[in-house]
Amino acid sequence: MSDCLFCQIVAGSIPSQNVYDDADVMAFLDIRPINPGHTLVIPKRHAENMLVSSDEDLVKVMGVIKKITPAILRAVGAEAFNLGCNTGRAAGQVVFHTHIHIMPRLATDGYRLWHPREDVPSDLNGIAEKIRKEIEKT
Amino acid sequence: MSDCLFCQIVAGSIPSQNVYDDADVMAFLDIRPINPGHTLVIPKRHAENMLVSSDEDLVKVMGVIKKITPAILRAVGAEAFNLGCNTGRAAGQVVFHTHIHIMPRLATDGYRLWHPREDVPSDLNGIAEKIRKEIEKT
Repeated sequence: MSDCLFCQIVAGSIPSQNVYDDADVMAFLDIRPINPGHTLVIPKRHAENMLVSSDEDLVKVMGVIKKITPAILRAVGAEAFNLGCNTGRAAGQVVFHTHIHIMPRLATDGYRLWHPREDVPSDLNGIAEKIRKEIEKT
Repeated sequence: MSDCLFCQIVAGSIPSQNVYDDADVMAFLDIRPINPGHTLVIPKRHAENMLVSSDEDLVKVMGVIKKITPAILRAVGAEAFNLGCNTGRAAGQVVFHTHIHIMPRLATDGYRLWHPREDVPSDLNGIAEKIRKEIEKT
């Protein structure tokens, strides 16, 4: 799509710091990294988010993540990593082209993960039942 | 593995609030949810993390995520979701059996995403070059 930032990166009309590129998948550095080596992996084929990307594209993306992540960690001296995929504006998605973040982590980097909150309902049984019913409808 | 918490959940020897179960993949509610409907999806086959899970298992996990996430969002009235996969202790991994978090999100929930920091080196060009060299070695 001509107005999609990541499609423009794929087309080469917007510059990017690429670390991997094949016929179907591209990986480049996030321009606002949380840590050095913070990388985005995208299917070249446009889709608004991972729910509507094809299974084939997601399999290829997952394969590239497995291939390049150990190299990213070695390159930046990181010990661990978070994968993240934000789907929908309320989840922090900004570019509406499927992408997965690889975020290298160090024990000393001070980042904290998502944390449970006191005000979240604890009725796991009732919630699981509602979800199972919704899955049955699909 | 007998001492793995998630293998014990798969075996049914530790109770869980399951939302999905097939021959290869299981999904159950996180007992410390960040929001209602916070779900973990795991391959039943034990592997310490996603880098060492088989491609086949990861493809199945991804397929289940695509299938059940819209149902989870409907069940809890959420608008969006984050996927997360923490690999290694420094990334917050606590249970060393591959698992992906599905975290339903609402615009009003107040959570903030990972944020860029001022002290992260901005030499994207040099970092990308280092990563490309490490990938070439693999």
